[in-house]
Amino acid sequence: MTVRHDPNRRSFASDNCAGVHPEILDAIAEANGGHVMGYGDDPYTEAARQVFRTHFGDNAEVYFVLTGTGANVVGLQAMTRPWDAVICADTAHVNTDECGAPEKIGRLKLLTIPATDGKVTVDAIADRLIGRGDEHHAQPSVVSLTQATELGTVYTPEEIAAITDFAHARGLTVHMDGARLANAAAGLGVSLRTLTTDAGVDVLSFGGTKNGLAYGEALVVLNPDAVHGVPYLRKFSTQLASKMRFVAAQFLRLMETDLWRRNAAHANAMARRLAEGAAAIPGLRITRPVQANAVFATLPRQVSERLQREYPFYVWDERTGEVRWMCAFDTTEDDVDAFVSAIRAEFAAAAR
Amino acid sequence: MTVRHDPNRRSFASDNCAGVHPEILDAIAEANGGHVMGYGDDPYTEAARQVFRTHFGDNAEVYFVLTGTGANVVGLQAMTRPWDAVICADTAHVNTDECGAPEKIGRLKLLTIPATDGKVTVDAIADRLIGRGDEHHAQPSVVSLTQATELGTVYTPEEIAAITDFAHARGLTVHMDGARLANAAAGLGVSLRTLTTDAGVDVLSFGGTKNGLAYGEALVVLNPDAVHGVPYLRKFSTQLASKMRFVAAQFLRLMETDLWRRNAAHANAMARRLAEGAAAIPGLRITRPVQANAVFATLPRQVSERLQREYPFYVWDERTGEVRWMCAFDTTEDDVDAFVSAIRAEFAAAAR
Amino acid sequence: MTVRHDPNRRSFASDNCAGVHPEILDAIAEANGGHVMGYGDDPYTEAARQVFRTHFGDNAEVYFVLTGTGANVVGLQAMTRPWDAVICADTAHVNTDECGAPEKIGRLKLLTIPATDGKVTVDAIADRLIGRGDEHHAQPSVVSLTQATELGTVYTPEEIAAITDFAHARGLTVHMDGARLANAAAGLGVSLRTLTTDAGVDVLSFGGTKNGLAYGEALVVLNPDAVHGVPYLRKFSTQLASKMRFVAAQFLRLMETDLWRRNAAHANAMARRLAEGAAAIPGLRITRPVQANAVFATLPRQVSERLQREYPFYVWDERTGEVRWMCAFDTTEDDVDAFVSAIRAEFAAAAR
Amino acid sequence: MTVRHDPNRRSFASDNCAGVHPEILDAIAEANGGHVMGYGDDPYTEAARQVFRTHFGDNAEVYFVLTGTGANVVGLQAMTRPWDAVICADTAHVNTDECGAPEKIGRLKLLTIPATDGKVTVDAIADRLIGRGDEHHAQPSVVSLTQATELGTVYTPEEIAAITDFAHARGLTVHMDGARLANAAAGLGVSLRTLTTDAGVDVLSFGGTKNGLAYGEALVVLNPDAVHGVPYLRKFSTQLASKMRFVAAQFLRLMETDLWRRNAAHANAMARRLAEGAAAIPGLRITRPVQANAVFATLPRQVSERLQREYPFYVWDERTGEVRWMCAFDTTEDDVDAFVSAIRAEFAAAAR
Repeated sequence: MTVRHDPNRRSFASDNCAGVHPEILDAIAEANGGHVMGYGDDPYTEAARQVFRTHFGDNAEVYFVLTGTGANVVGLQAMTRPWDAVICADTAHVNTDECGAPEKIGRLKLLTIPATDGKVTVDAIADRLIGRGDEHHAQPSVVSLTQATELGTVYTPEEIAAITDFAHARGLTVHMDGARLANAAAGLGVSLRTLTTDAGVDVLSFGGTKNGLAYGEALVVLNPDAVHGVPYLRKFSTQLASKMRFVAAQFLRLMETDLWRRNAAHANAMARRLAEGAAAIPGLRITRPVQANAVFATLPRQVSERLQREYPFYVWDERTGEVRWMCAFDTTEDDVDAFVSAIRAEFAAAAR
Repeated sequence: MTVRHDPNRRSFASDNCAGVHPEILDAIAEANGGHVMGYGDDPYTEAARQVFRTHFGDNAEVYFVLTGTGANVVGLQAMTRPWDAVICADTAHVNTDECGAPEKIGRLKLLTIPATDGKVTVDAIADRLIGRGDEHHAQPSVVSLTQATELGTVYTPEEIAAITDFAHARGLTVHMDGARLANAAAGLGVSLRTLTTDAGVDVLSFGGTKNGLAYGEALVVLNPDAVHGVPYLRKFSTQLASKMRFVAAQFLRLMETDLWRRNAAHANAMARRLAEGAAAIPGLRITRPVQANAVFATLPRQVSERLQREYPFYVWDERTGEVRWMCAFDTTEDDVDAFVSAIRAEFAAAAR
Repeated sequence: MTVRHDPNRRSFASDNCAGVHPEILDAIAEANGGHVMGYGDDPYTEAARQVFRTHFGDNAEVYFVLTGTGANVVGLQAMTRPWDAVICADTAHVNTDECGAPEKIGRLKLLTIPATDGKVTVDAIADRLIGRGDEHHAQPSVVSLTQATELGTVYTPEEIAAITDFAHARGLTVHMDGARLANAAAGLGVSLRTLTTDAGVDVLSFGGTKNGLAYGEALVVLNPDAVHGVPYLRKFSTQLASKMRFVAAQFLRLMETDLWRRNAAHANAMARRLAEGAAAIPGLRITRPVQANAVFATLPRQVSERLQREYPFYVWDERTGEVRWMCAFDTTEDDVDAFVSAIRAEFAAAAR
Repeated sequence: MTVRHDPNRRSFASDNCAGVHPEILDAIAEANGGHVMGYGDDPYTEAARQVFRTHFGDNAEVYFVLTGTGANVVGLQAMTRPWDAVICADTAHVNTDECGAPEKIGRLKLLTIPATDGKVTVDAIADRLIGRGDEHHAQPSVVSLTQATELGTVYTPEEIAAITDFAHARGLTVHMDGARLANAAAGLGVSLRTLTTDAGVDVLSFGGTKNGLAYGEALVVLNPDAVHGVPYLRKFSTQLASKMRFVAAQFLRLMETDLWRRNAAHANAMARRLAEGAAAIPGLRITRPVQANAVFATLPRQVSERLQREYPFYVWDERTGEVRWMCAFDTTEDDVDAFVSAIRAEFAAAAR
């Protein structure tokens, strides 16, 4: 069977268009051979647990899962009772891109708040804290943040701490959807712990796939008192891998070296390079702060459509023409420069 | 981080204690590099789709997922309406080993029937077809078979056809949990198609992980009229992989050669060797026909406990002392012979 | 057991603070005696079905249920597939007052839109029609309107038709939460059919309890093609009454005479009287158009708190001091006048 | 609208074919008039709470609901965590007659055990206590009993205590589906408390509708430590009545006098009279002990079919010809005698 895979084709559609980092591939191969018990009762998973504690603190307990939606749905269920609700930004992945998994699988109600550059604020959270103790209302009990946000922005440690302080004072716990937490940490030049454990986050969905893994995400419980039943929830939510060692081995390699930061920092640098190159094109407007590995810009529709023939990317908002460009750990400077040239050429063609 | 992985330790606990077949590992590596679109819109997934059609017929549509529970839950939801029920053996994996995922995630009611050597029969199915059209009863609409069964037995093509004929005549469709379908086909010396499409099966969960993959299962729709909404169900059931190419590439390698059959036939042969060796031990009784890669036997409790220190395996029934031994694609003749010797030695020790 | 029920105490908290209309009580008593089959296979239910057709057209099929939340959850499930979403106003009862039942029991995702005086608009609906056909998004398939709205306003027939035309043209169907449909029809001086069947509504939750019944709501399917499985959904959603005749007998009495309109028109008239009386109080502002049986006003917090000691009512928005006063079929002119006097007195006391 | 209600038609199909006891109807009427708060914050509900405590003990907390399925689903959810399972008889109403509500709405897995005359035993429960603590298995945490059983038998206080002792010793709690608990208590000549609180039952679904109410069931929490979140679960499970006073007033009347026992004892007496009369008919076999208000018998199919034209009843098992006859609070001696005569006549006709 011939596979038509053109290795020169580059995509800015998502950081998951990239493949696997070579060191991660090595880690999979090295973990191969011999027999180990399934479902996480193996030495790779045990070692990875230890490594996660070096990043997130001695209380951190990691549960490997398979998809980001899976991490979010398992984590949020573990943090809630059946009558609870989760406060999140209207732009949050859990709200917009998971086909309703939190509601349909996790049985959660989402209370969305209008986001500014993808971020929630204490004031907006406060506005949703109504009907507490009243049986007619699903009870807000968790705030879910995305870091980096779906709009490529990042919360500072102070912003996170302000939210977790507010939430904890009112009996809520805080979940972080960190599918791109590595990009946020690299962008801010801080540790993972600074943005999570130390900032008061209770439960973290930590992304692996978008940062160079073949597959695998990590649900990291930072505050054991904030959850219940994670192993069961992971299983019945279909997220328990049998050959867990291969998820663990990938994360072990990513996290025991600085590979997680190298990959993320590189993707971020490419996004900045792209934003700078594109911003110089007359008529193109960069619409969001570039703080991680995403660039948002507005383009004329015909320019977008012509560009997409060669370079896949998503139109974020059909109404405004805003588009999203994602850079990955393997995006090269040449890729970016060629893309900027292509954008410039299409603008020029459109102006003729 | 030191990983204490003893490559000489052999397990008979499950076929998922094995690693990845080297050819599959190569396939992952070869699919790496460059950018492709995520979520299955890539050339590997497309090629794998074609290869599945060579096995299962031109109408077959494959949807890759991540876990066996995921395949079952997505498939059964796709075959049912919200008020439906699924008839299955009381020993079925969907009933006993998925932490209630069909009920809790798939919102299904299971109508279990007593299984003989793991198999359901037409008569037993007929007994559950009560209350049809009556709003007080969840409506039986799907029969789910496991092939090979949880007890290591296999349905013949004729047995399957008898069930699908009966089911179809009454407006039900048939799902096959084929986590070990390859072992059944290898055991019977027939094609995959003979046991599925040609025998009237509508939807198949086809196992990959237990047969040499690192991860990945395939939901194969054989009868398009039997399902609805698979892509959405896969997504909100948390089973949509972003870097789908790596699931597809593994299956492509497994299925475009005879690797699927080689692996399964080898595991089956090792099970037969084990059963024959063990059966010769006085006092040990093989309790089930050995038709795939599982061996069931009754052992004195103290023998089991001492053996398990060196060789992991599961006690299937605490009350009777029945145990289960699984062989994998990488179980060797030496592994089996050493294990038989160990069993014999423990029997002897117990007799002293 | 002594029951401390003060018949002189009047509440403006909700129209469900009222009791049962005497004619309805008679209807319950008259349906008593003798044996009839349960679950709706009885002559009262059959007769009520016919009467509903005189109001809603020959295709109308009524299914009696027990609570408004039940009617909404059963109806919306009947209109959707498991991967669908429902568009509604952020103020909608299904979104704010059912403890998440649509998500938690109905497995629906709600896509909320900012409401103006409680109403959704075609433009706002259009904004939520994104991601159709994309597996990452729950699929918007139903628009749910509340008539009269939670803010006491009503949609005109033309407004409803504009929404149903827009929805149908895009493959969506339209649900109406008509817990107070009678009030809307009475307020507009039109028939129930004008606001539903003739305006293109597909499925209606028709309120009984708030309009003089002891209990009982009606799920009315106006377009049989828009639903599936209602009897099963009603049963497993816990909404199938065994002694259905008593629900049916109440609705039969309400609907075969003009009692439904008399009750609603009276409640509306009392709301107008209350609004007029209150509006004359300096410093009090009526905040919403009074088109049904609700009055919204802003009061100083201390005035509200003192008033609530004698007259129960709800503070609608703690931040603005907006309150809601509901009138019922049995609210009298004297009740209203006494309440207006009390408000005026508390304003005067607060000014001192 | 003419309602064809023949008051002379008698049904043995179910005790819910009966109407409302006149004293209960009076209670509804007497509770009418004036305004009270909805949703249970009213003096009737408060008074009924007190009365329930006189029956079930000072710790008993009653939550009124609308249907038996509703009581069971709310109660079982309140007793479980999302990953739990409920052990019940295969004949249990929750398993066979609720259209899958426990699974579909309550998200529970049911672990069924073969019942003898409708009863579960300690041994059978013990057999289902496998996989505890293992994430692959839904965790058995509740035993649900039906009293009287679906087969018309009753558990003695000693039988119940044996089950609750066993369950509690293993960390499980015990739910009783007491849709016909009154019949069981009347049959045994003991108090309600003897069969529930004193026998170690934790949560009770207490039937009202089958014992003379128009509608309404009571979820009675006997052990507060066994539940969580009942008010929220009741609301989102669609079981919160707005005009709660009318449910409460009915139960208040039923329970503050001996009406509950009179009604049940009468129905039981009619069942015994029916069983005695029928048993004397040659060829007819009474198949179950008659301990409450149900009679089971085997009849030739043609006899059943001819009888059903005049007297509705259900065929319990199509294969054996076993039928079920239920007596109600308003079944008279004449009703029974006429029915026995009709059975005898059909037997005679069939023999010709």
